[in-house]
Parts: sequence; structure tokens; C-alpha cells
Amino acid sequence: MLRLYDYLPSGNGYKVRLLLSHLGTPFELIEKDIDKGETRTPEFLRINPNGRIPVLQTEEGGYLPESNAILFYLAEGTPYLPDERLQRAQVLQWMCFEQYSHEPNIATARYWITHGHLTEINRPLLEQKTTLGYAALAVMEGHLASREFFAGGRYTIADIALYAYTHVAPEGGFDLDGYPALRAWLERVRGQPGHIPITQR
Amino acid sequence: MLRLYDYLPSGNGYKVRLLLSHLGTPFELIEKDIDKGETRTPEFLRINPNGRIPVLQTEEGGYLPESNAILFYLAEGTPYLPDERLQRAQVLQWMCFEQYSHEPNIATARYWITHGHLTEINRPLLEQKTTLGYAALAVMEGHLASREFFAGGRYTIADIALYAYTHVAPEGGFDLDGYPALRAWLERVRGQPGHIPITQR
Repeated sequence: MLRLYDYLPSGNGYKVRLLLSHLGTPFELIEKDIDKGETRTPEFLRINPNGRIPVLQTEEGGYLPESNAILFYLAEGTPYLPDERLQRAQVLQWMCFEQYSHEPNIATARYWITHGHLTEINRPLLEQKTTLGYAALAVMEGHLASREFFAGGRYTIADIALYAYTHVAPEGGFDLDGYPALRAWLERVRGQPGHIPITQR
Repeated sequence: MLRLYDYLPSGNGYKVRLLLSHLGTPFELIEKDIDKGETRTPEFLRINPNGRIPVLQTEEGGYLPESNAILFYLAEGTPYLPDERLQRAQVLQWMCFEQYSHEPNIATARYWITHGHLTEINRPLLEQKTTLGYAALAVMEGHLASREFFAGGRYTIADIALYAYTHVAPEGGFDLDGYPALRAWLERVRGQPGHIPITQR
């Protein structure tokens, strides 16, 4: 059986749990508390030397870190990843956008605010992250103004990757009122069969 | 013919030029100067609403942003991307690592230093980026201690993605002396047929 090392409030972990729920694939969940340093123990660093969740242990026993690589691995050959070459690359394009332009701003702002990490060093950075986070949301809004989903003309792992931290962006201080296409897309994602909320096992 | 919107000092653009050189694929280069704001003009934002290079224009005329998505698109069906499912995911794993844990620290430190952007806001952040950059280099060193390349047992787009900013890390103030496996890997990458330096067209 697949085994997932994860931390339930993590949007990165949620991406994987959401896809597994869509696929109806059973898995064993092993929780690691980031705030208690459980992903930096010598034992965990043998599983992922980069010290982060989620990590998927495959049926064959190999460890695969990085949420978007795990999504790609699990989605190959399913309706959640297109077969056509350019469409696959566009799915990846939005997953790269998520990890580079979206998550470091929106997820980090949320983490600082909800986990009491607005330290003297972080507080001045929050403004910059807020600006960049809104810029990422504006790119999404523009793309969704004429499309139902991000790539391939249907719900894919690109939507799963972007949904994870967008739907909890208000916890990071982001107001989504001015983003009607984005809010309609959030509803479409919630309407997919097998949808689960972020902290569901 | 493929068309690449790029900025020659960019490691993200170099990834694409390096793979195209390996593949012997001709392309038209259209240079956009980041420092002159040429990726933020209304004209360029129609090509990539996220305002970044590189962007590949495919033979069919579509625009594909995000360096690692472009690498994946170009490498499909070539020796630079394995066919086996877990190996493909591991290639992506290292490309995600590069965009999340490596590039935002090492490439940003290099950009600030070489482009005179050590502003009052950025200067205090440099220490944090230096710490996180060395942490990424340590993860690479540990992985390469027992391996010749990052994934699939051979030179792939994971190596290309990671080489781009690692080989110029000293320009960001990083000392690679304590990373012998990493330095040996840099040499192996340089020895690949069709290798070109970063600013080569």
C-alpha cells in the first residue's frame, strides 16, 4: 500500500491527499508535525534529505518527495493528466508557477499568520509577499476569465496544485472578493467527485 | 522554427538553450532585457502574463512559459527524460527542488550581487538566502556522493535544471570548495556532448 508522510494543515500535502481521494486509492498516512521539528530528525532526513513533507513511499518502497512530482507520478495514465505533449507541459507550467510565484508568497504568509511566526525578520517581508501573492492571483484571474480550468480544457493536477493554497489564501490575509473568475473556479474544484477538505485524512 | 524569448545571463533561460544545444535543435532567439523592464511591457504580458522569461513559442505558435515545463516539453521522447514512471517523477522531483529550494536562494543572491540590487530591503535577506542556498547545496552533495547524476542513472533535464544556477553559484557568494561530489558532477555536466556556456546563443 502507498504510504504518505504528511502534515494535515499543509497545502502541499493536501494536494496529494486530494488526488488520492479522486482516484479512490487507499494509502497509509504517517503524520509529521513541522512545528515540532519532526521533518528534521535524522530518521526523517534519511527519507527526505531536504527535510520536508509530503513524501510518498511507493508500492516498491522508494521515497518520492516534492508535492508536484508526487501528483505527476500518481496522475500518469489517469484523466487528471493529459496525454497530449503540449497539454502535459502546460499542466507542468502551472505547477511550476504554483511553486515559484504562488506558494512562496501565499502559503508562507498563511503559515506566518496562522502559526505565530510573524517575527521581527518576517513582519517587514509580509508586505512584499502580499504584493507578490496578489500578483499571482491576478495572473490566475486573467487566465480563468476565459477558461474553466488551468490546462488541457479540464480539471487536472494543475488545478489541484493551485487549489491547495488558493482556497485558504484568506488565512494569509488575501481578500478574494475582487477575483470573481477565481472564486467561480474554486467552486468548480469543490464540485469535483471525491473532493475532500484540506485537513481530511 | 522554435522561438525562445530569453535573457542571456538568466540561468532559467540557459537551461533551455543548453538542452536545445544537446538536441541540435535550431531556434530563433529573441532577447528581452529584464533590467530594462522588457518582460513587463503590455506586449510581452500578452505572451506571458506572469512577466518572466524564458518563454518558448512552439512550432504550432503556442507560448509555453516556465523553464522546467519547457525542458520537459522538449525532452519528451529523447534520452534526456527517462520513460520509466518513477524515474520521470524523480526527474521532476529534482526540478521542483531546484525551483523551490535552490533557485530562489542561489539565483536571487547572484542576481542581487551581480546586478547591483543589494538594496536596504534585500541586504538583510542575503544572509538568510545564503544559509538556505548552502542547505540546498548540501542536499545535492549528499545525493551525488553515491551517484553520477541526479535521476534515472544518467544525464537528464534534472541535471540541466540544477547545473544552470549551481555552476554560477560563486557569483552569488557561494564557495563550492567543501562540495567535492558536486564539483565532480559540474565537470561531468560540462563534458556532455553539445555543452555550451551560459551566455552562448
